Amino acid sequence: MVKGHLDRIAIKGKEKERSEKLGITIKKEEDSAEWYAQVCEKGDLAEYAPVKGCYIIKPYGYKIWENIQTYFNKELKRMGISNAYFPLFIPESFFKREAQHARGFSPEVAWIANREEESERIAVRPTSETIMCDSFARWVRSWRDLPLRINQWCNVVRWETKATKLFLRSREFLWQEGHCVYETESDCDRETLVMLEKYKKLAEELLAIPVIYGKKTDREKFAGANYTMTIEAFMPDGKALQLGTSHNLGQGFMKAFNVSFLGKDGEAHVPWHSSWGFSTRLIGAAVLMHSDNKGLVLPPRIAPNKVVIVPIIFDETRSKVLAACDEVRQMLAELDPILDEREEYTPGWKFNNWELRGIPLRVEIGPKDLETHECVLVRRDGGKKQYIKIADIKEAVLVELEEIQHDLFAKAKKVLDGSITPVQNWAQFVDVAKERRLILAAHCGDMACEETIQEQTGGVTTRCVPFGDEKIKRAQACVHCGKPSKYCVYFSKSY
Amino acid sequence: MVKGHLDRIAIKGKEKERSEKLGITIKKEEDSAEWYAQVCEKGDLAEYAPVKGCYIIKPYGYKIWENIQTYFNKELKRMGISNAYFPLFIPESFFKREAQHARGFSPEVAWIANREEESERIAVRPTSETIMCDSFARWVRSWRDLPLRINQWCNVVRWETKATKLFLRSREFLWQEGHCVYETESDCDRETLVMLEKYKKLAEELLAIPVIYGKKTDREKFAGANYTMTIEAFMPDGKALQLGTSHNLGQGFMKAFNVSFLGKDGEAHVPWHSSWGFSTRLIGAAVLMHSDNKGLVLPPRIAPNKVVIVPIIFDETRSKVLAACDEVRQMLAELDPILDEREEYTPGWKFNNWELRGIPLRVEIGPKDLETHECVLVRRDGGKKQYIKIADIKEAVLVELEEIQHDLFAKAKKVLDGSITPVQNWAQFVDVAKERRLILAAHCGDMACEETIQEQTGGVTTRCVPFGDEKIKRAQACVHCGKPSKYCVYFSKSY
Repeated sequence: MVKGHLDRIAIKGKEKERSEKLGITIKKEEDSAEWYAQVCEKGDLAEYAPVKGCYIIKPYGYKIWENIQTYFNKELKRMGISNAYFPLFIPESFFKREAQHARGFSPEVAWIANREEESERIAVRPTSETIMCDSFARWVRSWRDLPLRINQWCNVVRWETKATKLFLRSREFLWQEGHCVYETESDCDRETLVMLEKYKKLAEELLAIPVIYGKKTDREKFAGANYTMTIEAFMPDGKALQLGTSHNLGQGFMKAFNVSFLGKDGEAHVPWHSSWGFSTRLIGAAVLMHSDNKGLVLPPRIAPNKVVIVPIIFDETRSKVLAACDEVRQMLAELDPILDEREEYTPGWKFNNWELRGIPLRVEIGPKDLETHECVLVRRDGGKKQYIKIADIKEAVLVELEEIQHDLFAKAKKVLDGSITPVQNWAQFVDVAKERRLILAAHCGDMACEETIQEQTGGVTTRCVPFGDEKIKRAQACVHCGKPSKYCVYFSKSY
Repeated sequence: MVKGHLDRIAIKGKEKERSEKLGITIKKEEDSAEWYAQVCEKGDLAEYAPVKGCYIIKPYGYKIWENIQTYFNKELKRMGISNAYFPLFIPESFFKREAQHARGFSPEVAWIANREEESERIAVRPTSETIMCDSFARWVRSWRDLPLRINQWCNVVRWETKATKLFLRSREFLWQEGHCVYETESDCDRETLVMLEKYKKLAEELLAIPVIYGKKTDREKFAGANYTMTIEAFMPDGKALQLGTSHNLGQGFMKAFNVSFLGKDGEAHVPWHSSWGFSTRLIGAAVLMHSDNKGLVLPPRIAPNKVVIVPIIFDETRSKVLAACDEVRQMLAELDPILDEREEYTPGWKFNNWELRGIPLRVEIGPKDLETHECVLVRRDGGKKQYIKIADIKEAVLVELEEIQHDLFAKAKKVLDGSITPVQNWAQFVDVAKERRLILAAHCGDMACEETIQEQTGGVTTRCVPFGDEKIKRAQACVHCGKPSKYCVYFSKSY
């Protein structure tokens, strides 16, 4: 084995050269799925794992997740929400206690084969409502213990049968799940919305992704929830992507797990309960939204590296150019820039390579620049090139990073706003659905009607009922069945 | 169900009162295991989960883990080691490729019951050497890719059959596992030791736990390793606790997973491989080492809260006392102090409660203190009480925190040093083993001899061969069989 293995080394070397020369070999407009996979893999974010339905988050991709965690942990701390850790394993009987929840999750639960003396099956957590509520019954005793607010960062497993898509769909993924218990329904309602707003802020300010947001219809809500709120992005390929959800779970789990508290009135009461979560899918969303046919484009606030410095090396000026590069590196030290001094690659190869990886800014320094004490600053997102005095480089870099963050959001917002298409009747609905736009239409709210729409359009589903539009649209007729409408709702295909 | 449930509320309230009045109900010296469980549970660190072999890390305990992570992530970054994430699931065939590894882990692997179209069984990771090496075969191509250094923070599962002990033994636990690939054996040797030294520093400087360190004997090394190095603490109850291990894995996994690289010489070579890990067990070690019969004692550097402020409230001076407390709270703002203003508990109850939770320092402010512009500063570890001018409180707190950290280490070091007992012959060995001391003795290095020692002493095993003693002791005879000794080694029972 080792012999044959060593023989393959030379071939591996050639393969490397070929693949790296080629960059992204397919256009976003031609085959969005293949383009996406190449951007993630060649951009060094992730790769498929040898076990079905799973993938590996490589260091470059994981750093994006850490940046998201750092941002969100600060938000959590500000709200007095603590991190904790609950077991991966959940007894089967826990799922059975909340009937809707059990029905919703049963098709996709993974079970442990080791049984021994155990009398019941053990599930690998698909989500942690049940096991947390079992603890909450011990932790919550009086109104003084409320609100109780817990978050955990962990892996969860849902035994998907559809094809894996890096970050977007997999059997295991990383996420955060928050679980809160409140004295009153209105406390619960209020914070369910507060968390949704935190998610919207995260998507827009950190990932530069504009979202639509509102309530899910009953057909699309979380298994066991009174209602679910969602933030959703609309991708350039005409499909929506759910980015985060916040659920008011009412009192169902509380009753099922005997959670109660002594109120200020000295009486026993059943509290209210919410949960909210987002996952590593956020990374996939940022990739899909911003990247182009040269590879990754990353918003500066999540980019693992903000700047790369590439020297243009000729033998006679090598040391001067490298000294200038090092000077710039030190000036930008707090941004932790990469200085790519490798001798075995040409500057052109390096440009392509760092573009593949989506580093927001590139600084080029060559012998001619030294004569004018300048360097070249190039933006990844639009390719804008500027000559900057070396003495001014730090300020210029900070300004450009903010502008890139702003411009990526503005560009995506324009796409989203331009995609929303109000629709008045079914014929129009069918046409617009074919164009893969984000449809806004009145609907009766009937689950069977929603299902028929999905069947007749090859998979168009409701995304959310935007806030404020519920009552306004009641006067209209349902876009499909013509009955009086309950609300106005977004429709589209989705990831 | 809800009715009966609500009826139990009043009982729950009484139970709470009773349990919190009582504090720790057993002495460390009387029943170390029960004392430990009570300290963890009443100190609010963790609790047993409803599924066998698992436990819940409560927010207060999880914050200690986050403090350890923050410290160690800085060390990793300084060394250029990146975090990544590999799948929870590993194909069975991966384990079979490295024979020793497969034999070592097979009794404790948990398997997934869902099989569908899969042709082989899927394991829940007990450790990630195999799945990482499968990726390394793609990631490593030339000497320029080396050293490759990857770390991951994750959960792992080992299907323990022994009783669960919070933080110390469980079917699922959290850990970090580092995996590195090197060009040469000497690079690998060097960094295997560097990581062990990082662990020693972490244990001693962060957790205030002195350790013995050195190589494991062949019988105790990691399944698949050339050799294993370890740091071990010696607990007050006379048992050693392994805190972290660093393995030189040689080329076994590299060959099994076809990892190779093109050297500077243009030839193909098989690289060298190491791994190293520590787990949430560190939290249990700190609890066991420092806590007392009043509950938790936490070293300041890992304590979630460093200071609590308790007002001594009487009706006529309430507002003045609370104002002074708030002033102190603001002066200590960067330490994020707790101000316990609750009216429903007496100061005495609060003192006991915060002592149970191991907060390193308590500030008391009452009406008499205000007359002299003073407050009382009380140390959790020894109970030392000082009157401090309020204007000087911040400096005093910072000084005391450093002293507590230092004193806890010094006290534990004294216990460790006093426990080490060099032993010359078998009769002496048996006597000293009964006294639960840390034995240092010459040994032949034979696995069968080591096994006999374990059998004849009811479980005494080798802990490590301290560095530098290997050759010195070769002249001596093995403490058990009398054959020429190979090295000098620590023996004790262990967790």
